[in-house]
Amino acid sequence: MLITLLTDFGLSGPYVASMKGVILSICPDARIVDISHTIAPQNVEEAAFVLHRIWRDFPEGTIHAAVVDPGVGSARAALGVHACGHIFLAPDNGILKHVFDACPERQIFHLTNETCFRTPVSATFHGRDIFASVAAHLARGVPLESMGDPFDGYMTGDVKKPVRQSDRIDGEILYVDGFGNGVTNIPEEMIPDMSNVTIQIHKIQIKGLVRTYADVPSGNMLALTGSGGTLEISMRNGCASGKVPFVAGDSVTVLMHPNSATQ
Amino acid sequence: MLITLLTDFGLSGPYVASMKGVILSICPDARIVDISHTIAPQNVEEAAFVLHRIWRDFPEGTIHAAVVDPGVGSARAALGVHACGHIFLAPDNGILKHVFDACPERQIFHLTNETCFRTPVSATFHGRDIFASVAAHLARGVPLESMGDPFDGYMTGDVKKPVRQSDRIDGEILYVDGFGNGVTNIPEEMIPDMSNVTIQIHKIQIKGLVRTYADVPSGNMLALTGSGGTLEISMRNGCASGKVPFVAGDSVTVLMHPNSATQ
Amino acid sequence: MLITLLTDFGLSGPYVASMKGVILSICPDARIVDISHTIAPQNVEEAAFVLHRIWRDFPEGTIHAAVVDPGVGSARAALGVHACGHIFLAPDNGILKHVFDACPERQIFHLTNETCFRTPVSATFHGRDIFASVAAHLARGVPLESMGDPFDGYMTGDVKKPVRQSDRIDGEILYVDGFGNGVTNIPEEMIPDMSNVTIQIHKIQIKGLVRTYADVPSGNMLALTGSGGTLEISMRNGCASGKVPFVAGDSVTVLMHPNSATQ
Repeated sequence: MLITLLTDFGLSGPYVASMKGVILSICPDARIVDISHTIAPQNVEEAAFVLHRIWRDFPEGTIHAAVVDPGVGSARAALGVHACGHIFLAPDNGILKHVFDACPERQIFHLTNETCFRTPVSATFHGRDIFASVAAHLARGVPLESMGDPFDGYMTGDVKKPVRQSDRIDGEILYVDGFGNGVTNIPEEMIPDMSNVTIQIHKIQIKGLVRTYADVPSGNMLALTGSGGTLEISMRNGCASGKVPFVAGDSVTVLMHPNSATQ
Repeated sequence: MLITLLTDFGLSGPYVASMKGVILSICPDARIVDISHTIAPQNVEEAAFVLHRIWRDFPEGTIHAAVVDPGVGSARAALGVHACGHIFLAPDNGILKHVFDACPERQIFHLTNETCFRTPVSATFHGRDIFASVAAHLARGVPLESMGDPFDGYMTGDVKKPVRQSDRIDGEILYVDGFGNGVTNIPEEMIPDMSNVTIQIHKIQIKGLVRTYADVPSGNMLALTGSGGTLEISMRNGCASGKVPFVAGDSVTVLMHPNSATQ
Repeated sequence: MLITLLTDFGLSGPYVASMKGVILSICPDARIVDISHTIAPQNVEEAAFVLHRIWRDFPEGTIHAAVVDPGVGSARAALGVHACGHIFLAPDNGILKHVFDACPERQIFHLTNETCFRTPVSATFHGRDIFASVAAHLARGVPLESMGDPFDGYMTGDVKKPVRQSDRIDGEILYVDGFGNGVTNIPEEMIPDMSNVTIQIHKIQIKGLVRTYADVPSGNMLALTGSGGTLEISMRNGCASGKVPFVAGDSVTVLMHPNSATQ
């Protein structure tokens, strides 16, 4: 059974290894895949985006433990979620917002069954004591339904959708990747004529979308449809986020020119 | 069979992958778990701490290869250790000091049987040529006893214990994690009354221990029992080690106030 | 079946995990080993070196997907290569140059069979859509020959060999590792008398090769035969590349002294 791990625990310390040790002690056959452990500390938005972009690539039945958890030890619930054929384990802090947005039919449980926890549960490391342990028990075949009661009062989170007006689409940067590409929330389908638009980010304007990086000279800014199906801002052989610069949350506007179909 | 790897080899270069290739060539069914490969270069103390905090989370029989090895190629011995039901492979430089402290009954072997090495053994990469290769042969069922002779002259290392006096406990920071939390060597059990103490680190004083981060306002310094069962110094939604600042080895004092039981 | 992954995608974002999800969806039994994902962005030379140093350590039949791909989406071909008993999947940009240098007998295919791709193929992420998907189908037993036609017009790349004259060998730094060691392209066998040479890098001269780091005092520069069998420039308990400083591509000269055999 496949378990993915997504945390902000970093790669140097003992925390990720502790989660893996707990999982493999309970379920020696579990297969563990690291999504990322270098989410910026406590950056729930960044983790939500990364999870959003990867879970569909995994087989149905995969158990995804996503633990960026500034409220660990507080009254916030630990969630177990059946959605779109996958299982998600996460603190109730919005980290699953894109999953909830994509999967209107879902079952949510409040993880409270301590027989599936590593006990005593610490006040600071539910990644190990609750989420890893529950993931391993699920991988062994314990049903999610037995882990706690159905739960309604969870945070669905706020997924910002781009807004289309007659001559413009207002969206935003969701994520800046390691190359400095700015991934936006504007889906390809929303842009009627890719060659007759101008993309504006801060004071930079980019004319039209291209198909791939090699369509512009080295060092040029460009816009294209990224691998997640949304508009991305890039620089060929360079780092767009260093040039402009932009960060997650910044506004991106697609200006649609008049007579675009007939010019 | 489970093999864990802990090194300072970094994640960019070829070294960790070479170890894995060697292991999987000898024992294709081995399961390899990375503990960390971003221990600060040659920082044996840091590696010793990380190993200390994770090995108990793994199942009995796990083979832990811990290779932070400034003396590679010199006369220092390569050790194979049976302790507390686990196997540890490491250079004789103190990296196993917390394991030795925790496991008074142990068998130590000097790894000298070249039939289990990748030969010729290089003078600079025993992680690949000795430790990975021996780990894989162990995973295939070769007994540790056949890898070399029992060995007495190893470094046990110096595990600094906190010192309790009538009104204070003097300990130290063992490790600063990626969030900036300072993990100390002062066990929870040593502090008689958590609400009636003051924790001092450098010129900062923190009154009392709290249960979790959310018990103080954002940005406040706090002290609590960490996930390893010892006192930790933290900042809610911030980086304590950046504020104070502190590093591993710095002194931490718990001042116990008079009449603490009766006030 | 073993699949290794080598990319410049970084560890924070969704890209590596997407590749793994695609692989495990197609071939649930595939075993995936990360070589490195922190190759400097678009640094094909660096990736070529790391691949060069590790592939022999893996068992025959291993599938190596090496994706540092500045030309993604352009007309550059995607290659599938049988060489020295291994399979290599990579863009046609020179990343396999050391493999080609080591394996004169090889079969090269242009990966064009879309039934083995994740479709639709994006213009920016062939790591996921072509290389990971093809690797997984190969791991399931689909023969490489069915993935596309034999291909002749690929880049073999330029592997710079050291040049020996009567009194000197002129080579270069191929790679600077995480410890600051400079790995050169000068093989041990090329140096006739290791004790009677001077190694020059920039304005630094090092007299003779030593066997290991511990043969010189702490903080001293040294030269030795590294774990890959070539000359390396190091500093004991320090960072040679920070001291000199040097980077990949810098010249290294071995000066061979007269009468070296008779003095």
